[in-house]
Amino acid sequence: MTSSQQKTITLLSDFGTNNHYVGAMKGVILNICPHAQIIDITHGIPHFQIKQAGFELACCYDDFPTGTIHVAVVDPGVGSSRKGLLIKTKHHNFIGPDNGLFDLILQREHDAEIFELDPEKIHTPKNSHTFHGRDLFSPAAAFLAKGVSPENIGKKISFTAKSKPKRTDFPLEGEVIRIDHFGNCITDIHKSELGENAFSQKWQLNIAQKTFHKIAAYYSESEHGSETALIGSSGFLEFSINQGNFSKHNHISEGCPVHVEKQK
Amino acid sequence: MTSSQQKTITLLSDFGTNNHYVGAMKGVILNICPHAQIIDITHGIPHFQIKQAGFELACCYDDFPTGTIHVAVVDPGVGSSRKGLLIKTKHHNFIGPDNGLFDLILQREHDAEIFELDPEKIHTPKNSHTFHGRDLFSPAAAFLAKGVSPENIGKKISFTAKSKPKRTDFPLEGEVIRIDHFGNCITDIHKSELGENAFSQKWQLNIAQKTFHKIAAYYSESEHGSETALIGSSGFLEFSINQGNFSKHNHISEGCPVHVEKQK
Amino acid sequence: MTSSQQKTITLLSDFGTNNHYVGAMKGVILNICPHAQIIDITHGIPHFQIKQAGFELACCYDDFPTGTIHVAVVDPGVGSSRKGLLIKTKHHNFIGPDNGLFDLILQREHDAEIFELDPEKIHTPKNSHTFHGRDLFSPAAAFLAKGVSPENIGKKISFTAKSKPKRTDFPLEGEVIRIDHFGNCITDIHKSELGENAFSQKWQLNIAQKTFHKIAAYYSESEHGSETALIGSSGFLEFSINQGNFSKHNHISEGCPVHVEKQK
Repeated sequence: MTSSQQKTITLLSDFGTNNHYVGAMKGVILNICPHAQIIDITHGIPHFQIKQAGFELACCYDDFPTGTIHVAVVDPGVGSSRKGLLIKTKHHNFIGPDNGLFDLILQREHDAEIFELDPEKIHTPKNSHTFHGRDLFSPAAAFLAKGVSPENIGKKISFTAKSKPKRTDFPLEGEVIRIDHFGNCITDIHKSELGENAFSQKWQLNIAQKTFHKIAAYYSESEHGSETALIGSSGFLEFSINQGNFSKHNHISEGCPVHVEKQK
Repeated sequence: MTSSQQKTITLLSDFGTNNHYVGAMKGVILNICPHAQIIDITHGIPHFQIKQAGFELACCYDDFPTGTIHVAVVDPGVGSSRKGLLIKTKHHNFIGPDNGLFDLILQREHDAEIFELDPEKIHTPKNSHTFHGRDLFSPAAAFLAKGVSPENIGKKISFTAKSKPKRTDFPLEGEVIRIDHFGNCITDIHKSELGENAFSQKWQLNIAQKTFHKIAAYYSESEHGSETALIGSSGFLEFSINQGNFSKHNHISEGCPVHVEKQK
Repeated sequence: MTSSQQKTITLLSDFGTNNHYVGAMKGVILNICPHAQIIDITHGIPHFQIKQAGFELACCYDDFPTGTIHVAVVDPGVGSSRKGLLIKTKHHNFIGPDNGLFDLILQREHDAEIFELDPEKIHTPKNSHTFHGRDLFSPAAAFLAKGVSPENIGKKISFTAKSKPKRTDFPLEGEVIRIDHFGNCITDIHKSELGENAFSQKWQLNIAQKTFHKIAAYYSESEHGSETALIGSSGFLEFSINQGNFSKHNHISEGCPVHVEKQK
């Protein structure tokens, strides 16, 4: 086996790590593709929190090598008729349920090809209606890692039922997707959506009753106690108070709308 | 190194993941067998809960490739005279203490060969009386992964002191081994013990005051609110109420006896 | 790639496992060095507890193969001017912040060479002031694993600003560094500092108001209820009561001084 053949498969879920579920997924993958390199992103997503799962994945998928296959399973609709997806972008592959989990990625990755997984073409010894992480998504990832083409395990589709429409033009309408333990309000707007000159550009950024006109590159650009819009280490637009709690100070919770416009 | 030489070693324990114990085990393994592929099943078994450890392992060991070595360490008797075991089945290997941890596996895997590990033949630099996960079981697994034969690290024995007798004939006497967070009562009876026609066969299944005559393949076969005996995604017989809590409704806790008989 | 080229990289941090931080570090490593074998020691160090992190690492680093690269990130000073370190010992490599995290290792490992990492020589696509685990330490480890020499990613220095002076002569002044859940008081004094004849030597060991003259090899050497000084399974001097709680009984908490002298 040569270096170029080894494929990395990442796993992200809300399964926790006090049971055998993640182990079972890994076993299925290694049974099909013994040399896959399996990396856990996290299995500590709170139960059924699709948005948070999508955020954690969006924060790190592009740190991985080209060709990596990212399996994400937060799947309250398992057993229903929701589709299983395989999304191919220029450098990465994503496998998981069609429930919005990949929205943040689809908003950044243009030219994504989307396939609906065909369970009939993905045979595994165990076959449940309730554990698609083991019985559908993991084997799909392992087949892909082995070199099976997406067309052989699914069929190409032109949209996903559950995805939000892509933001393609200003003004961008976004929302607060995560409030971290410092009270920083992280939005679902990625720096790649802001264009080349985000830090020199003049902006009209609205959140709650506040307006910001500048995006900083670092926390340290702002003075102690002052409010700032900046790009966090994860690459998303966020709002913070230097050494304070932006969320509490402005009574902002997750889901709060954010409006981003270029100022002329 | 060829594909066939790489061996997967799984780890399961009650060590938790907030300390160095699991890292130490992995270091010892890699020191002996640098190319072992080490996979965590879980280290979140509650302290000393042997039955739960055995259940989690029994739920997923057969998802792994043929030849996998499963190390399980929930070991309240470490330091006493309890044996260390190596169990070889047709497709898998199990290493850990002789305290009943492998009962569920021995009930399903016929033709298992059992070896008592010989600590004298397993030399490692550190050598404690209290951390056999690092000093006995991990090196035994690594030697096995390297191709050392079981006879060179232990001696064959004909039984294990702590295992329950195998269930070989109907009626099967089992028990509730796990109650999941939906209140489903999962038993220690595996579908492989029920024979070929489990879903078409007529049964006499007793749990608490209830009797069931049919085993369903899926939750969805039963009506909302109705009680069902079925095979869960882990392969074990379980009792549930469709969208209700079987355990609470019937006042059943772990250890509750289950009686399984074929109806003539 | 041959067997001898594969390098193990261990990770230890206070990041927890419910977010993408550890996944991001692994992605960065694999992007630079696709065949690195990445092993988690723990990510459950309590936030900013540098001493505990150093202890867990010191307990297991020497279980790993020669050449292993240990990345440890508990880093309250990230963003300040604290140095990033690369420490080369005879068999191991350590990468992380200069904040005392590697004190226990430096006390045991003579002939350690210390390098200050040069962020200018470690280019990665993302480049934050707040996430050096991803943007400085992980890529440094990956470059080292690929065969880049320490001189090419840092410059040799003769001391670290934050390390305690090495203990080179008796009497040794140490402290209780960890109290385990049995109440055993584990010190920062490693058996390698006690010389060849630790178990036969007569000692003058002082902790709180107590004096011990003998170091036992195992718990079982002492009688039920008696107090003992011994070498624990991690290799550090500790004080315990056989089946009792030494810490509670003697009102000892972490940081309690320990004085170790050879008796003539």
